[in-house]
Amino acid sequence: MKVLILGGDGYLGWPTAMYLSRRGYEVAVLDNMIKHFWEAEVGVDPLVQTRPMHIRSQVWEELTGQQIQTFVCDIAENPKCLYKAIDKFMPDAIVHFAEQPSAPFSMMDRDKCVTTQQNNVNGTLNLIFAIQHTNPDIHIIKLGTMGEYGTPNIDIEEGWLNVEHNGRKDRVLYPKKPHSFYHLSKVHDSNNLEFACRAWDLRVTDLNQGAVYGIDTEETKMHPDLITSFHYDSIFGTVINRFVVQVAKNLPITVYGSGNQQRGFLNILDTIKCIELAIESPAEKGEFRVFNQFTEQFSLNNLASMVSDVAQKMGLDPVVEHIKNPRVEMEDHYYNAQHSGLLELGLKPNLLTDSVIESMIKNVLKHIDRVDENLIYPKIKWCHKK
Amino acid sequence: MKVLILGGDGYLGWPTAMYLSRRGYEVAVLDNMIKHFWEAEVGVDPLVQTRPMHIRSQVWEELTGQQIQTFVCDIAENPKCLYKAIDKFMPDAIVHFAEQPSAPFSMMDRDKCVTTQQNNVNGTLNLIFAIQHTNPDIHIIKLGTMGEYGTPNIDIEEGWLNVEHNGRKDRVLYPKKPHSFYHLSKVHDSNNLEFACRAWDLRVTDLNQGAVYGIDTEETKMHPDLITSFHYDSIFGTVINRFVVQVAKNLPITVYGSGNQQRGFLNILDTIKCIELAIESPAEKGEFRVFNQFTEQFSLNNLASMVSDVAQKMGLDPVVEHIKNPRVEMEDHYYNAQHSGLLELGLKPNLLTDSVIESMIKNVLKHIDRVDENLIYPKIKWCHKK
Repeated sequence: MKVLILGGDGYLGWPTAMYLSRRGYEVAVLDNMIKHFWEAEVGVDPLVQTRPMHIRSQVWEELTGQQIQTFVCDIAENPKCLYKAIDKFMPDAIVHFAEQPSAPFSMMDRDKCVTTQQNNVNGTLNLIFAIQHTNPDIHIIKLGTMGEYGTPNIDIEEGWLNVEHNGRKDRVLYPKKPHSFYHLSKVHDSNNLEFACRAWDLRVTDLNQGAVYGIDTEETKMHPDLITSFHYDSIFGTVINRFVVQVAKNLPITVYGSGNQQRGFLNILDTIKCIELAIESPAEKGEFRVFNQFTEQFSLNNLASMVSDVAQKMGLDPVVEHIKNPRVEMEDHYYNAQHSGLLELGLKPNLLTDSVIESMIKNVLKHIDRVDENLIYPKIKWCHKK
Repeated sequence: MKVLILGGDGYLGWPTAMYLSRRGYEVAVLDNMIKHFWEAEVGVDPLVQTRPMHIRSQVWEELTGQQIQTFVCDIAENPKCLYKAIDKFMPDAIVHFAEQPSAPFSMMDRDKCVTTQQNNVNGTLNLIFAIQHTNPDIHIIKLGTMGEYGTPNIDIEEGWLNVEHNGRKDRVLYPKKPHSFYHLSKVHDSNNLEFACRAWDLRVTDLNQGAVYGIDTEETKMHPDLITSFHYDSIFGTVINRFVVQVAKNLPITVYGSGNQQRGFLNILDTIKCIELAIESPAEKGEFRVFNQFTEQFSLNNLASMVSDVAQKMGLDPVVEHIKNPRVEMEDHYYNAQHSGLLELGLKPNLLTDSVIESMIKNVLKHIDRVDENLIYPKIKWCHKK
């Protein structure tokens, strides 16, 4: 089975590529490298510098004998190179991580907002057309986010909702109310993809991920040159990763607002496993299939306590601080999201245990001199009061 | 009261400008003129050539003494000129017609699809930021379309739906399932605008219009140089306008598919009146208000009969033909869409009477030599089977 990974240079794309390659899939990675530009633009860098994608691919081949083909291509701006890559590699499945991934980035200013939506929406549209043109049978596995749903006062279902209204029934796309222009870009993608399934019989799996945490996978640990990009900053870092870096650096854990915000989370290992499960059981032709891809649900306060407790046992001196919420979101809200689809496909979750947190903290401590505390505190506010 | 009309060169934008100017509003029009490029690109032209926007504005001033300021500006590609226009004109309300308006255009190929979504989404995002930056109190009146909803099996409400699910309740954005990348671009706009209301307290009225018909308004009839752009082609022409031109030219009325498709319709006079009503009763700060802007509901078969009957009485020789539906849409479906909001604001509908149809046919007959039958038959198909 051949799998092409768009955004294959990134935090999740690269470990997914190695995992699949090691398990006998023929894998290619494609990236436009623009994340490096965005990082430089907003002045942040990952905890440890990663090697260029080409070099990682060479190291991987030397270690395992498995080839990971590389394509450098901007799917949003240069669709021809995407068409060519698909024509050349002839994948059975395409995993689509190639999006601007940060909510705060999208809220910085007009330019960053438009960049985010244009990059994400155009890239996904170009992918839709490329597949319709080359081989409509290719299974698209698209990474979305739980943040697309926002925090509705009803249970969150997996992408679709059975509605009864004035005595009549329908199955409708789950109505969404996201909290940033980034999350909105993913909603736009989902809507475009659902139409492509309906109009052109494409097969799509939309994975609405919770916030991912974790640094290592079995494969990233095989060689120092194979590590993936780990961000702890307030723009590209996810919340657990940030909290872990804060306790390791002896900085207060900064919780946005009351900390009662509930979210879904998953381990990087489960992100990758979910993608394998989706590849192995593809969506039907014409099916827009949605999974909510997270394994546990916590409030930010829960998380802060969990990280703090482990840090304390390790002899660190953690403090939890509440800071003014830079985002516009509900802090006290109902939250009950279904996530049974992937479990039914066979997912065995890696939960956020004390030992997982401890190993993350230990890992960060190895590179503690690289942590720049100025990057952690949020500077981007959703509301710019005049 | 000052009103800035984006897309003020177009079929609806220009008559709206004159109508409001005549009733004492201070009006400015803004357009990037790109529709002229698109028309040339796909090889269609309006029934009668319109004069350039600047000249129409001069003629209007000579006739009425009222000034209509003109701005040439691409709000999608050059946000600075939009910021400047708002800073200079200081409108109380902005009416946003400045979008690629054709579903078939968006389905032609990848390039046209991306052009449509990028033009429409970026333009609306830039408008959101411009208003947040200059004066968040400005009321945005955004033109959407009834096509955003698609054809759900439940009643269509005005933008929002009260849902009860597993014993809990919420008011959610009405879930949409549109039939083209154009209609999807408007869904994306609506989602972005709703977020802007929530995050930044903007005030937005989203008008989901039915298909508009009609050629003249009181103001367009005041001088030959003031007519508006009327399209009868299969790309930019709406269905009633096309049927009227077909009978006038002694061509068969071409109904797509079974003709049982139900849609909402309204007279160009009511489009304009609805906009005035929305301006006069602005949305509250933070309110994303949605109206379904149509006055009557017909099947395509109903419409074909109505136009055919009038044509027959006029001594023409109308024939109705069913052709293979170029679109992907349900032909036999439930359709019951609410549209009471604008009636409650005081709309007195101009219905599609025989005399309205007759006057449209007579109007077209005056320019019958200009009708090119090659432009009417649909060439763009939703499905490109390989």
